[in-house]
Amino acid sequence: MTYYEDLQIGTRNCFGSYHVTREEALEFASKYDPQAFHLDDDAAAATHFGRLSCSGWHTAAMTMRMLVDNMDNVANTKSLGAAGIDDLKWIRPVFPGDTLRVETEIIDKAPWPGRPEMGFFRSKTVVFNQDDKPVMSYVAKVLMQRREPASA
Amino acid sequence: MTYYEDLQIGTRNCFGSYHVTREEALEFASKYDPQAFHLDDDAAAATHFGRLSCSGWHTAAMTMRMLVDNMDNVANTKSLGAAGIDDLKWIRPVFPGDTLRVETEIIDKAPWPGRPEMGFFRSKTVVFNQDDKPVMSYVAKVLMQRREPASA
Repeated sequence: MTYYEDLQIGTRNCFGSYHVTREEALEFASKYDPQAFHLDDDAAAATHFGRLSCSGWHTAAMTMRMLVDNMDNVANTKSLGAAGIDDLKWIRPVFPGDTLRVETEIIDKAPWPGRPEMGFFRSKTVVFNQDDKPVMSYVAKVLMQRREPASA
Repeated sequence: MTYYEDLQIGTRNCFGSYHVTREEALEFASKYDPQAFHLDDDAAAATHFGRLSCSGWHTAAMTMRMLVDNMDNVANTKSLGAAGIDDLKWIRPVFPGDTLRVETEIIDKAPWPGRPEMGFFRSKTVVFNQDDKPVMSYVAKVLMQRREPASA
């Protein structure tokens, strides 16, 4: 089990293989981001995207799935969820048919003010497509359980 | 039709009413964020969330849906999608049964470097629950079509 105390700044992880189907892209966009360029081929062709692309929030959601699968399968971390996200960039469109993967690096860690049972780490997270081109990046601030509470 | 040129810094909008069902919370978490505290009542009760809460990415997705409905129904903006998000904070848990709404404010606008047909604005976005408590906030950088291309 990985607790806050076990995290090492500089640790890098590469994981995930998420194939994006057209069906899933349309389903997500229909529910949560029904802009024409995410739903209609002709409307998308008329924009700077060039063709139908996934909602950026769908890319974020698929990335979360890869992160959770990696936590469960490999790291088994005592994560308490994320407090926030900085500097999220949708760098390139994600298209149906793409296959995504993730690279993370722990760039920082610190106690969580006022909560002696928690710490947090900041994880630089980059998502790549099958051509190894980055499509999205962000820095997540993730809360972690401490093995032992911080002393006052 | 609202173009980049029409945007006024300081403009505020309040909109949306998104009722979060338990069924939808579980469906999203099952697909995209299957951490125990988003799926299982007992596991959630043992965490700082206190009870089963929505994935933060689900809150972001529901917020996008309210934004798109508002763009369609009211503003009719020539948005070209968002380039990124800064300073996203999940301030409080969102629970099944909550009803969410959005407040936005245009805090900045500028031409988009190298793309004379586009500009962008930054929108401070805050999501509230039915008790008027903020649950999430972020600053979105949104690309907009210009009515007339910028001169070189």
